Amino acid sequence: MIRRLAVIGVGLLGGSVAKMARAQGIAREVIGIGRDATRLQVAVDDGTLDRATVDLADGLRDADFVVLAAPVRTIEELLDRIWADVAPDAIVTDVGSSKGAIVRKAEALAHRLPRTFVGSHPMAGSEKSGYGVARADLFRGALVVVTPAATSGPRAVKTVTAFWEHMGARVMELDPDTHDRAVAAVSHLPHLVACALVDAVTREMPGALPIAARGFRDTTRIAAGDPRMWQEIFLANQAPLAEALGAFRRALTELEALVAAGDPAAVEAALARIKVAREAVS
Amino acid sequence: MIRRLAVIGVGLLGGSVAKMARAQGIAREVIGIGRDATRLQVAVDDGTLDRATVDLADGLRDADFVVLAAPVRTIEELLDRIWADVAPDAIVTDVGSSKGAIVRKAEALAHRLPRTFVGSHPMAGSEKSGYGVARADLFRGALVVVTPAATSGPRAVKTVTAFWEHMGARVMELDPDTHDRAVAAVSHLPHLVACALVDAVTREMPGALPIAARGFRDTTRIAAGDPRMWQEIFLANQAPLAEALGAFRRALTELEALVAAGDPAAVEAALARIKVAREAVS
Repeated sequence: MIRRLAVIGVGLLGGSVAKMARAQGIAREVIGIGRDATRLQVAVDDGTLDRATVDLADGLRDADFVVLAAPVRTIEELLDRIWADVAPDAIVTDVGSSKGAIVRKAEALAHRLPRTFVGSHPMAGSEKSGYGVARADLFRGALVVVTPAATSGPRAVKTVTAFWEHMGARVMELDPDTHDRAVAAVSHLPHLVACALVDAVTREMPGALPIAARGFRDTTRIAAGDPRMWQEIFLANQAPLAEALGAFRRALTELEALVAAGDPAAVEAALARIKVAREAVS
Repeated sequence: MIRRLAVIGVGLLGGSVAKMARAQGIAREVIGIGRDATRLQVAVDDGTLDRATVDLADGLRDADFVVLAAPVRTIEELLDRIWADVAPDAIVTDVGSSKGAIVRKAEALAHRLPRTFVGSHPMAGSEKSGYGVARADLFRGALVVVTPAATSGPRAVKTVTAFWEHMGARVMELDPDTHDRAVAAVSHLPHLVACALVDAVTREMPGALPIAARGFRDTTRIAAGDPRMWQEIFLANQAPLAEALGAFRRALTELEALVAAGDPAAVEAALARIKVAREAVS
């Protein structure tokens, strides 16, 4: 049971954390911290937040559990700004989509002033953003990757794991760099590819768009994601993303060569292998 | 009102045509033609077909409307095999995903023996295939591109258009080559890209698959499509697909270079432009 939960950033993810904390009685008190008092007020008015503030130190006072729900680069900056104001017994976690830089930043800060940080990445979200689309069940059935660091401590990892489980999520532990390579492959790469698909068709073949059907819409849905958030994700995870793009280019070149060679059996065998692989993805 | 509708190939598309023809009373009689009598019998037993046969000439006898519902390459072969058995007053259409080769084949045949063919491409389907997933409402709200040829004649184009409208679809007319370039861009390219994504991750980063979330699943759903059908589509539409792949590579390279350059404002501006473009796709 959390005494005072402070959520920094009350958008889709932070708002959903706050709503679920309220719905499940996970925290006695829920404080929202953001930059825009008017927007925060909506979450106070609907009963999700007990109190909202634009002052970080004020919002963090006596909080025993803190969730940083901002784009990845902003989370790095926030760690710098909040560290001294976090209560010594509090646990801080985040929702950032890449973890290496964030965990390294927290480790560096913890070596100067001991505070407890455990990185989290809830694999939930939407191409829509903002508190307006937040919902208590956003994390239900979702996977949350928790990325402990040397200074995290087993008790804090257990508490953060339990926190996400109360949000309805399944939790998996990974070290930050393994996590970053994995999300580069299954999240950041598909996102960049979807963006390139939209861009290519829009710019070079716009006449084709009126006949786009479900295949195009599904494949490119994520390209409507929040530009700021995805800019930060791509730049925070450059090297693993470049590596995943290399693997993608090799696979694409191979398929393209098969099609150009025109051997029906070879093309069909490749597609059959890929169908089996895709069907194995739950 | 069709007297006798012959559907060659009673799978997802052909089965759905037959079911909707039955449900809407579009045809007095519905004949199914296929290669496997046992599988066809299912559609007779459930009342969708009045009669099933594995004999093309037998199935085509007295049919005044014929739908070729097979993979694209097979449709080309079928045109050769059925042409002489088609009644002189009958109208033949198809469901092939690329139209240039099919329409040219029908034109060549019509110059030797006058019969009426109007190409169709219903932009509906599923990554699943077979009669088991056929349903009467498959075409409801879908777009069907009709690709008339010189020998089609306006009356036949009108009849085929009305046929698809009775199936619940919207109909758009395009010339076959424009159609093929358009579907290469918004259907065949996304399909090949989805396949390459699955292949790259499966072969080079299999450890990432357990954390794949909705973004990866949606982006790659179509990679589980029928290998035979897609092999035929890719090989029937090689040149337009290669052109679309070129446009995609240019867009991907540009985005990759932006990310590598590391300028947040430039990356965000590109993503914002792409978001607007994606949101304009209905």
